[in-house]
Amino acid sequence: MEEKLHAHCPLCLKVDSLAKLPADEFIWEFPHSIVTLGPWQFYQGYCIVVAKRHFHELFDLDRETRSAIIDEVALTAQAIHQVISPRKINYEWLGNQVPHMHWHLFPRQESDSNKLKAVWVELEQMENDPQKKIALEWASRGRAKLVHELRHELVQLTKME
Amino acid sequence: MEEKLHAHCPLCLKVDSLAKLPADEFIWEFPHSIVTLGPWQFYQGYCIVVAKRHFHELFDLDRETRSAIIDEVALTAQAIHQVISPRKINYEWLGNQVPHMHWHLFPRQESDSNKLKAVWVELEQMENDPQKKIALEWASRGRAKLVHELRHELVQLTKME
Repeated sequence: MEEKLHAHCPLCLKVDSLAKLPADEFIWEFPHSIVTLGPWQFYQGYCIVVAKRHFHELFDLDRETRSAIIDEVALTAQAIHQVISPRKINYEWLGNQVPHMHWHLFPRQESDSNKLKAVWVELEQMENDPQKKIALEWASRGRAKLVHELRHELVQLTKME
Repeated sequence: MEEKLHAHCPLCLKVDSLAKLPADEFIWEFPHSIVTLGPWQFYQGYCIVVAKRHFHELFDLDRETRSAIIDEVALTAQAIHQVISPRKINYEWLGNQVPHMHWHLFPRQESDSNKLKAVWVELEQMENDPQKKIALEWASRGRAKLVHELRHELVQLTKME
C-alpha cells in the first residue's frame, strides 16, 4: 500500500509540514526519510525515522527505496551511537497505531532498569502510574542539546558518505 | 562488530548447526540469513530472521549486505502476509539479550486483545501468569503445518525474484 500523501495519516501530515516541526523535535531530512527526536526521552537519544512516502509493509517498497531507507536508518543509528554510547540499539517498526513506515530507534544502556526487556514493558508500567509518567518525557541532557548533537554527527556522517 | 562465528553466541551456534534444527522450527535458508518459526506462537506465524554473520548494529554491515538481508526480511514478511493475512506486521531487532542480528516478525490481527500495543506488553503479563504461559507457545494451526505453509510461499516468492 503506497501513495504520496494519505489525508488521514498523521505521519504523511508531519512529512508534508516539516517547516512547522518544533526545533526540539526535527533533527534531519534525508532523501527518503526524516528524523525526529522521540516524544519520550526516558531512553535518552530515542529517535524516530519516518519514511517520506506512505508504506505499510517492507514488501510494499521497491528494492532500491527499501535499501536507501535502511541506509538512512543505519546512519541515524550510527549518530545515536556516537552521541549516546549505548550498549545496544533497538530497531522497531510496529505500526499498530500508525502503519506508515517509521522506525523507533531506542538506545539501551547497561543502567536500564529492565535492560534485557523491550522498552514497552517499562513504558507500560509508567503509563499506568501518573506520578512516573513525567519521567517518560524528561531528557536530562535537554531536548535542544540532543537535537544539536545528533545533527552535528549526521553532518559528519553524511559528509563521509 | 562482526566476525564469522562467535563461540559464545547462541545464534552463531544455531546458524552453524542448521542441520540439527527441529523440523518444526527451521523454515528457510537465504544467502545471508535463516528463517525459523518463533518459539511462541501466541501471535500465530511469528518468525525470526537470523543473519548468518554476527553483527551488533545496522551500521556494522556494509551497504550491500544490509540491503540483501533487508530484502530477505521483506520476503519473509511477504510469505507471512500470504499465509496469515495480518492487519500489520511488527518488525523488531532488539538484541537486549542476544545482540546478534535477528528480526522478530510478529503478524498482528484485528482480534489481538492488545492490538494497539507492542507484543511485549501482553507477553510480559503471560510470563507472570503460569496458567497463561502455555498460551505463549501454542499454535492452533500446528507448528509443522505453519512451517510447511510458510516454506511453500517462500518457494513461490523466491521463484518470482
